[in-house]
Amino acid sequence: MHAITIPEPGGPEALVWDEVPDPVAGEGEVLVEVAASAVNRADILQRQGYYNPPPGASPYPGLECSGRIAALGAGVAGWAVGDEVCALLSGGGYAEKVAVPAGQLLPVPRGLDVRQAAALPEVTCTVWSNVFMVAHLRPGETLLVHGGSSGIGTMAIQLAKAVGAKVAVTAGTKEKLERCAELGADILINYREQDFVEEIRQVTAGAGADVILDNMGAKYLDRNVQALAVNGRLAIIGMQGGVKGELNIGALLNKRAAISATSLRARPLDEKAAIVAAVREHVWPLLDAGHVRPVIDRELPMRDAADAHRLLEESGHVGKVLLTT
Amino acid sequence: MHAITIPEPGGPEALVWDEVPDPVAGEGEVLVEVAASAVNRADILQRQGYYNPPPGASPYPGLECSGRIAALGAGVAGWAVGDEVCALLSGGGYAEKVAVPAGQLLPVPRGLDVRQAAALPEVTCTVWSNVFMVAHLRPGETLLVHGGSSGIGTMAIQLAKAVGAKVAVTAGTKEKLERCAELGADILINYREQDFVEEIRQVTAGAGADVILDNMGAKYLDRNVQALAVNGRLAIIGMQGGVKGELNIGALLNKRAAISATSLRARPLDEKAAIVAAVREHVWPLLDAGHVRPVIDRELPMRDAADAHRLLEESGHVGKVLLTT
Repeated sequence: MHAITIPEPGGPEALVWDEVPDPVAGEGEVLVEVAASAVNRADILQRQGYYNPPPGASPYPGLECSGRIAALGAGVAGWAVGDEVCALLSGGGYAEKVAVPAGQLLPVPRGLDVRQAAALPEVTCTVWSNVFMVAHLRPGETLLVHGGSSGIGTMAIQLAKAVGAKVAVTAGTKEKLERCAELGADILINYREQDFVEEIRQVTAGAGADVILDNMGAKYLDRNVQALAVNGRLAIIGMQGGVKGELNIGALLNKRAAISATSLRARPLDEKAAIVAAVREHVWPLLDAGHVRPVIDRELPMRDAADAHRLLEESGHVGKVLLTT
Repeated sequence: MHAITIPEPGGPEALVWDEVPDPVAGEGEVLVEVAASAVNRADILQRQGYYNPPPGASPYPGLECSGRIAALGAGVAGWAVGDEVCALLSGGGYAEKVAVPAGQLLPVPRGLDVRQAAALPEVTCTVWSNVFMVAHLRPGETLLVHGGSSGIGTMAIQLAKAVGAKVAVTAGTKEKLERCAELGADILINYREQDFVEEIRQVTAGAGADVILDNMGAKYLDRNVQALAVNGRLAIIGMQGGVKGELNIGALLNKRAAISATSLRARPLDEKAAIVAAVREHVWPLLDAGHVRPVIDRELPMRDAADAHRLLEESGHVGKVLLTT
């Protein structure tokens, strides 16, 4: 088969479409013939040599895919050859075939093309596990989503609105904020022109955000704590603004607030399967009913993955960028 | 009645036993004739002028008491005049009488003298709400308790052992660590001679502590994150080591860990009542059965509260220091 390989870490040109051995479905795994994968920021870090695949994972990038089941490994029940699926991966999505633990498979939601479903696994699992399983966002509460027009952001807006929360977003352009508004965002904050702490205070009558979904890490840490409400929960899923930041513990304590930080890729199989099962139970019915939709910026041929990486590095996209075989 | 007043903030001598007007039980409150109160670090901050009582609270110090119900306000059910009780307070325990919201009352556990029960409300509510309601310590997990010989520490050790957890403690002397061992602590760390991060790693085969109960704040923040296990939870309840510290978000994210910070005093009535109800359900049976006991360093006459504060400031105690009327 073909896959995107990384002979040497580097810029987008480090991604090379090459012929490689076919993967084999091990016990408890299925072999998926890939229709599409999607680009995540972690893929860029992997390309640069900063984020090696965990032990046992495919060496190729790609944390999600969609396609058709081509073979079943031993001990797999509930899935059949020919089923159209999408899957959360620990790597290897930028390829024509990939072996996936059965617990990380999801069916293609009703009304979606199999390729479109590649936009779903990472964003649904990340948003559900952080905003709902860890931070327990409740109806009537306010969620602040940084990077509202990203893949994660566009899904977080829709899921939070679906459960009856109020949603505030930050983004860097008027156009991106308008797209967030179309998805249901109630409060639009242009981080280039406005102070999100002040804006959140104003729209919540001084109360602050109950939950914040953050991809900036250190750069926003202090302001995120300032923007939290009493009993607020800050869920950090990215560190685009740095790794180490000053924490005002006094402010956190006065608010009886909490900070969590997670990633999906390094989790053991049982935790991934538990998240995928929760997503299938809670998010998939919303997708099947059309209440929540993947937001797809564009589709590019997988062999042109370098162009997709350039697009993400320039933040020129809204939602997900797909790579099709 | 008499109460300890603070005419001017300052050292222990700022505490003045003086005649003051009797409190009155408002709607939903009871009037308690105080047998004993107990000293908390927050009382010292209040004496120094750094921790003013929240709006509506008594101006006198004292966050817990025990005694006999002398009168019922309107709308109080489930309690009668003459009942022996202990209570979580937002202030006013250093007095001969105090008015208490009925939701913050607990019965005196079987086998305990009414005065001894004054040692219970703050430590049981703080430990239960943080270690169990927020950090969800589970059987078989490892809890690290900083200040294991403090009032909080001595209760945390006993409750964690009662649910089947492994308990590590830090303390500053061999004698204090021996007292922790008598209460069930499995791993004893002298913080003056040992690095708690290294010790925790060794005794957990590199895994780290699942839950840490911390009273040091900034000074221990980075090392606490280092000492956490994957999926670990750091619960901060004090800032004896400072308010602002550097947080390594990358380390937190790699461990999928969480940090919470809480205090009891500023919580609204309904949250306090919910914690007291959970403590009555989960902790009181252990006290009634004698599996968990209050650890009382000594009893001093309430008018000598200054001596009790000196004792706490020198960390010369193990467990709780009571003030009796």
